[in-house]
Amino acid sequence: MILHGFWRSSASWRVRIAMGLKGLTWSDRTYRLRAGEQRSDAYMAINPQGLVPALEVDGTVLTQSMAICEYLDECYPDPPLLPADPLMRATVRGFAQAVACDIHPVQNLKILRMLAARGLDEDAVQAWAREVIETGLEACSRLIADREGPYCFGDQVTLADIVLIPQLGNARRFGARTDFPRIEAVEAACNALPAFAAARPDRQPDAE
Amino acid sequence: MILHGFWRSSASWRVRIAMGLKGLTWSDRTYRLRAGEQRSDAYMAINPQGLVPALEVDGTVLTQSMAICEYLDECYPDPPLLPADPLMRATVRGFAQAVACDIHPVQNLKILRMLAARGLDEDAVQAWAREVIETGLEACSRLIADREGPYCFGDQVTLADIVLIPQLGNARRFGARTDFPRIEAVEAACNALPAFAAARPDRQPDAE
Repeated sequence: MILHGFWRSSASWRVRIAMGLKGLTWSDRTYRLRAGEQRSDAYMAINPQGLVPALEVDGTVLTQSMAICEYLDECYPDPPLLPADPLMRATVRGFAQAVACDIHPVQNLKILRMLAARGLDEDAVQAWAREVIETGLEACSRLIADREGPYCFGDQVTLADIVLIPQLGNARRFGARTDFPRIEAVEAACNALPAFAAARPDRQPDAE
Repeated sequence: MILHGFWRSSASWRVRIAMGLKGLTWSDRTYRLRAGEQRSDAYMAINPQGLVPALEVDGTVLTQSMAICEYLDECYPDPPLLPADPLMRATVRGFAQAVACDIHPVQNLKILRMLAARGLDEDAVQAWAREVIETGLEACSRLIADREGPYCFGDQVTLADIVLIPQLGNARRFGARTDFPRIEAVEAACNALPAFAAARPDRQPDAE
């Protein structure tokens, strides 16, 4: 499998965690997003969205990190990334989507550049990202407030943790608060796992 | 089941389509989003994100429309909303997420209000929504350009269609172009189905 990604892309980071949890190996192709390499003709032919990550599997290109994680879970079911019970599966997916739909896309590079093009200065752009992230993480902290740990949903790592941890990395880049006790506890538990440690941006070959 | 929603919310619309395709019945609880009813204490206790839709199932609250659709598909598998093959499932989910992660959240009411609070006037806010929608739909049209119809991915309605059709409704509200031939053909095919017709915003009890 070939993972098209970028060290600091939090969506790429999610896929690296999932691949690591499954014990998979892969080749990396990396794109410097700030230089626009993900918009090159060559990469747009791979993923017409011009976004990373994309995962090539036997010549088929899969896009969108959560779809890729679900694919990995279906083909490599051990360890599972979702609980068995349908209501709990939906709850875990709902949490993951609260991050992946309602926080991350609204603070990613493309949107921040659109804001700058509308005349917002760098401070205002950073404040936008902080507001989106803090509001979102606060809601997420409530979604898991009454759940047992150590992970978001009990003693099994799920898609929820895979999506949450990279978002915390983004939060710190923008100086957003992350001091939600339940979330901090999840992060500590995840970071103790080799798959999470190996997936960190600063451990990637293209890290600057 | 109780569906907490709003007639014009495209995420609520997705769930209505999925429920209809499965032949399910449900009760509606509706919230006037522009009046902020989704941020009331009563609703925040149901969904801490303060967003619609939410689906109550036997006292459990499910949030996030795609997670809800997947839940419905797992519990009511006929007709299926995803293909059987894992690579195709991932492709369909990837398309749905290209809309649900990269278009819709960046043009929803919350974000447009944040833009207005940054000083963008109404024309600029509408132009923002159009840009996000047109760029996103163009990428989506490429993702399915080489696929057989009549639906996004062949002769079976999938999650991709369920997410695409409401986004086209949003596109028209903002005056964004929707004249992508493959997408227009999918829309015509979907609109001929009773579940899609019944889910339209103007057919809902709270439609204004």
